Amino acid sequence: MTQISNSTNAQTALKRLLKATKSDMEKVNSLILSRAESHVEMVPKLAHYLIESGGKRLRPMLTIASASMFANNDEKSLKNATHFAAAVEFMHNATLLHDDVVDESNMRRGKPAARMIWGNQASVLVGDFLLGQAFLMMVETRDLDALNILSTAATIIAEGEVFQLSKTSDLATTKEEYDLVIKSKTATLFEAATKVGAMAGGATKQQCEALGEYGTELGRAFQLVDDALDYGGLSKSMGKNTGDDLREGKMTLPIIIALQKSSDTEKALIISALGNQDLEVETVEKIMALLAKKDALNETLEEAQTCVNNAKTALKKLPKSEMRDLLADIADFCLLRAN
Amino acid sequence: MTQISNSTNAQTALKRLLKATKSDMEKVNSLILSRAESHVEMVPKLAHYLIESGGKRLRPMLTIASASMFANNDEKSLKNATHFAAAVEFMHNATLLHDDVVDESNMRRGKPAARMIWGNQASVLVGDFLLGQAFLMMVETRDLDALNILSTAATIIAEGEVFQLSKTSDLATTKEEYDLVIKSKTATLFEAATKVGAMAGGATKQQCEALGEYGTELGRAFQLVDDALDYGGLSKSMGKNTGDDLREGKMTLPIIIALQKSSDTEKALIISALGNQDLEVETVEKIMALLAKKDALNETLEEAQTCVNNAKTALKKLPKSEMRDLLADIADFCLLRAN
Repeated sequence: MTQISNSTNAQTALKRLLKATKSDMEKVNSLILSRAESHVEMVPKLAHYLIESGGKRLRPMLTIASASMFANNDEKSLKNATHFAAAVEFMHNATLLHDDVVDESNMRRGKPAARMIWGNQASVLVGDFLLGQAFLMMVETRDLDALNILSTAATIIAEGEVFQLSKTSDLATTKEEYDLVIKSKTATLFEAATKVGAMAGGATKQQCEALGEYGTELGRAFQLVDDALDYGGLSKSMGKNTGDDLREGKMTLPIIIALQKSSDTEKALIISALGNQDLEVETVEKIMALLAKKDALNETLEEAQTCVNNAKTALKKLPKSEMRDLLADIADFCLLRAN
Repeated sequence: MTQISNSTNAQTALKRLLKATKSDMEKVNSLILSRAESHVEMVPKLAHYLIESGGKRLRPMLTIASASMFANNDEKSLKNATHFAAAVEFMHNATLLHDDVVDESNMRRGKPAARMIWGNQASVLVGDFLLGQAFLMMVETRDLDALNILSTAATIIAEGEVFQLSKTSDLATTKEEYDLVIKSKTATLFEAATKVGAMAGGATKQQCEALGEYGTELGRAFQLVDDALDYGGLSKSMGKNTGDDLREGKMTLPIIIALQKSSDTEKALIISALGNQDLEVETVEKIMALLAKKDALNETLEEAQTCVNNAKTALKKLPKSEMRDLLADIADFCLLRAN
């Protein structure tokens, strides 16, 4: 893990992806801003607040990057890639708005969540608006196969979120169930983002599948790292949001692993903390120590490493190119965040 | 008004529409049930609870009825009409789930709202799931023009709901703004339902527009009657949910009309009640008396009557048929509910 983390290629990957997709992403960004417009003042206000809150826009960049790997560079191809990228970002933003309501989150990207300013009601409805606009942008491409992929993704994401909700504080949650949750709620959109990008670029069916596989594995790695970071990651240091998953009773891999290896007394500690909104810092620290003792974060990140390896293997099915190498570095970059 | 209400044709209209669309609606209903399935138990449980809670399924029936008015009766046409009808109902159900969360409603169709049983979180997410499934069903028809209409509708509905939210307890709300709210949040889906039905049936562009116009006017009438019923309608009698709009601070036409004609003392009474969640029955009764004094419910229902007339005028652009007459009766039936 540490070897990869120190690789210069991984460290500079995001910067290089930003540079490589810059001119197309400018088109995506203006499309995003124009489609968040409305005669109803609250819609662009809330949408812009979220859109401009400093997300990396990794998903739309992946769409643009995937499209750029193939021969088609005509106007139609660029229009489709731009529309898919903006649609993917809107789907992501709609999910964030609804998630913050569902999780009762107060903060998002270091700022108050939109619901803290405009309320839960507006967050639900503006999320619906963005979802509608996402579909509208897809329809404008007139690409029915891509529409099928993206609307299937919307369904699977929501289904995954309900599955996660139904497993709240459920001690019997298995690693397989956890994997189904993260595949559905996170990896599905990464998969759709890369796949429809490849389609816009004119890739063959096999190439689209390969990029879709890359997206799936990248998405899984991304969520695994996120879930490790919720307990401080490898640095094991306490941040503002450390333990949020614990408070929400989210059965993520670190907790599942720890439970499997715990004595009854240790289990009782986890049980007392799961879903406890008023959790004290001391208890979070105790759980973090337990996770360290049980090697739970390391094992979670090893799983993420496996996903990263799978992602890079999938890329090998594609013709060699600079962008292919960059996407491999992006997979490594994903793990960097764990430190 | 009273004359029309007593017309036998209007009284039997819904029953006759149910009969006329029965065999196709059976297909729609099984499609609805099959698309509410999921490996996540909570999804079909919550969805079936809402789906089977005794809604009239007026919107999907309008889609089927509209399709049946035209020549195409082939397999493709029937498949499309069925898919559009189910998609329209899912869009409606998703809106209901989200609305109940937004309005903090405890009851829906005389039963506890889904959110009271499964929580706000599940209601938001299952709503998203149904919306995703709705789009998926539309995509399966491969009809891009219909997809455009339905995804535009999804956007406008959400936008209308945000507009309504932003006008909560806003005394300066105009009749025009109210009309924009009800056109967006209610009439848009009625319009889409009839229009895509006509498209599935193979109607000409003009015929699709005429049925869309019928849908718009029917939807406006429907919402106006709903808003009058919230204050007891013509019977002016108090029911379980009477005054809910008042408690939620919804600026509906009866209140807008009353405000325009009120003295400062009367205005003060309305202001004290708007958005007051703990409103006492006595205050609701006082407001109902004020609405009667100001003729506000009658004027609201006159506006609904105008919409019904417009709806029937739009139908005249279509070839004469039994279904055309039945749809005209359905418009009259809409007003019957006000008594």
